[in-house]
Amino acid sequence: MASPPGPARAPLTYREAGVDIDAGNEAVTRIKRLVASTRRPEQLSDIGGFAGMMGIPAGLKEPVLVSCTDGVGTKLLVAIALDRHDTVGIDLVAMNVNDLLVTGAAPMFVLDYIAVAKVIPTQIEALVSGIVEGCKQSNAALLGGETAELPGMYAPGHYDLAAFAVGVVERSKTLGPDRVKEGDVVLALPSSGLHSNGYSLARRALLDPERANLTWTDPLPGDPSTTVGEALLRPTRIYARAFAALVAAEGAPLHGAAHITGGGLLENPQRAFTDALALRLDMAKVELPPVMHAIAAQGVDAQEMLRTFNCGIGMLLYVDPAGVDVALRALVDTGEAPIVVGEVVRRGAEDAVQIDGFAPS
Amino acid sequence: MASPPGPARAPLTYREAGVDIDAGNEAVTRIKRLVASTRRPEQLSDIGGFAGMMGIPAGLKEPVLVSCTDGVGTKLLVAIALDRHDTVGIDLVAMNVNDLLVTGAAPMFVLDYIAVAKVIPTQIEALVSGIVEGCKQSNAALLGGETAELPGMYAPGHYDLAAFAVGVVERSKTLGPDRVKEGDVVLALPSSGLHSNGYSLARRALLDPERANLTWTDPLPGDPSTTVGEALLRPTRIYARAFAALVAAEGAPLHGAAHITGGGLLENPQRAFTDALALRLDMAKVELPPVMHAIAAQGVDAQEMLRTFNCGIGMLLYVDPAGVDVALRALVDTGEAPIVVGEVVRRGAEDAVQIDGFAPS
Repeated sequence: MASPPGPARAPLTYREAGVDIDAGNEAVTRIKRLVASTRRPEQLSDIGGFAGMMGIPAGLKEPVLVSCTDGVGTKLLVAIALDRHDTVGIDLVAMNVNDLLVTGAAPMFVLDYIAVAKVIPTQIEALVSGIVEGCKQSNAALLGGETAELPGMYAPGHYDLAAFAVGVVERSKTLGPDRVKEGDVVLALPSSGLHSNGYSLARRALLDPERANLTWTDPLPGDPSTTVGEALLRPTRIYARAFAALVAAEGAPLHGAAHITGGGLLENPQRAFTDALALRLDMAKVELPPVMHAIAAQGVDAQEMLRTFNCGIGMLLYVDPAGVDVALRALVDTGEAPIVVGEVVRRGAEDAVQIDGFAPS
Repeated sequence: MASPPGPARAPLTYREAGVDIDAGNEAVTRIKRLVASTRRPEQLSDIGGFAGMMGIPAGLKEPVLVSCTDGVGTKLLVAIALDRHDTVGIDLVAMNVNDLLVTGAAPMFVLDYIAVAKVIPTQIEALVSGIVEGCKQSNAALLGGETAELPGMYAPGHYDLAAFAVGVVERSKTLGPDRVKEGDVVLALPSSGLHSNGYSLARRALLDPERANLTWTDPLPGDPSTTVGEALLRPTRIYARAFAALVAAEGAPLHGAAHITGGGLLENPQRAFTDALALRLDMAKVELPPVMHAIAAQGVDAQEMLRTFNCGIGMLLYVDPAGVDVALRALVDTGEAPIVVGEVVRRGAEDAVQIDGFAPS
């Protein structure tokens, strides 16, 4: 070979270059039992194969696979700052599963991607325990995943999470813009707080010395029962049980739904209906979470709040007027606190989302 | 509200906090046409919905979904250093699709997750163009994706990529450890170089001032027709066409396959067979890529090379002896250069993978 011979010196190893295969294997051992607890009857593989394998639930005439991917965003910086890693996995699953649900699909399985500067097996275990909890709330199997040790790509102690969810729906029962009609009643399912959007702005408003200048352990303004850190880390709600109850309820025809994610109430509601329609939303009926009041008080105006945060609404449901009572009952029975928050109208020259009664601070 | 009122000052916006929704929207516009070019007939959704939707290919009696996730790892640091972003998407798809193929599945769709410190629409477009190329080589639709702008989580100019792939296989035709038998002939499909594993060690060996001390633009030792940077960035081969040809060839029964990924030739071959068997591998028949000779010359010993790199073999195929000639013909017809590299034997007390003829530097 033309390679210049190396001078005499210590052998060079992968571990010395920053990658510890043994720590990776220990992490796998730690998470195996957790992952196994999400197993579903259709599942044909266990962790450790090249790929996960799963059959399709029986009884569907024309199954449609529904799939999406998302991460948790800079909410992870809150978990890292607080050194608490067992809840962001719930957020990760939530961001994906809530996107799936609005198509009418039932979640089947989730895969996770964890990228770290250095594998700390107990930290990976904590992250996966949250993912597993999210999968259980979604009735989804954690079918596979990847833990990537990437020295030089993340700052020490930092990590990123992404997930991917697959669900299934009978083709004739898919929800979508063509099913939502003028006169549909719109129900809101409350969020638990920020969910997983708007954290760059939230941290700026609450923690920046030039803004509220709070610390993680300060009481949250407006809610002294919690700290700033706890309020920011509160897990995203997963609406899988609510959707399952709606699908199972006779006479509660759900026409569509919108997950209130990035883009907030200004950009998400209209993803569930056509350009011919508009949504009238009465925000006076919705309680703004205290954390959002505190953010708004730092000079974030109403439009920016609406465009960035869920403003108390995690999910909007578009329901046939004849089915509203049945839908409300089904939702309340699963522990939800639905709010009749608006209606679908024919759209004129106005915006697709018309919001009244929103006074954030 | 109990929130302290903010003093008079400029309104605080999401953009000012580092997130530019408009740049994100421009990136989406740029990639729409690219993504649309991967559309498959079963596909029921376009980019922009909450989730991607796809039917299941017709004609399968008992379809099994196969799914996996992976990233590109620190190969991304090479792309970032060279400011060349249109090929790592191929690697991203390859790492997932090659994992799918070994189960016998045909790829159906891919979703991508791109996380950046700051959205640069042309950079996102370059990344997605590589992902699209990978999808085309795999006959997979790019069904969805997420571009996350995460200020504070990545260094300026840095990004991470993850992808998820889903394929489908007739249940009776799944490959796996229970099908590989003593006497099976083992074929190797050559790699194009490092593929997407071992980059932390490769960069250390080639670029570190205390090791080879090369620069990105230096000629590669042993292959002056290419530079160090080009050799490190060479895309991972995707074996989808090879597998499709094997599946279609009458009388070429493929029993199993192993994608040679992280853990190299010491940890991957045995993922395709049971503990009762072992693989005898004759590496004298395999050409070690020049980049690996150059790495070995820097003091990486043979065991470490075998445990970290693919050592010239991207994929191992376990073939029934009666079908070897047909398999070789089918592979050659797709442009592959298969090598008869070993056989499956009954395992005694020895290692699961027994390697002869490996002399890396």
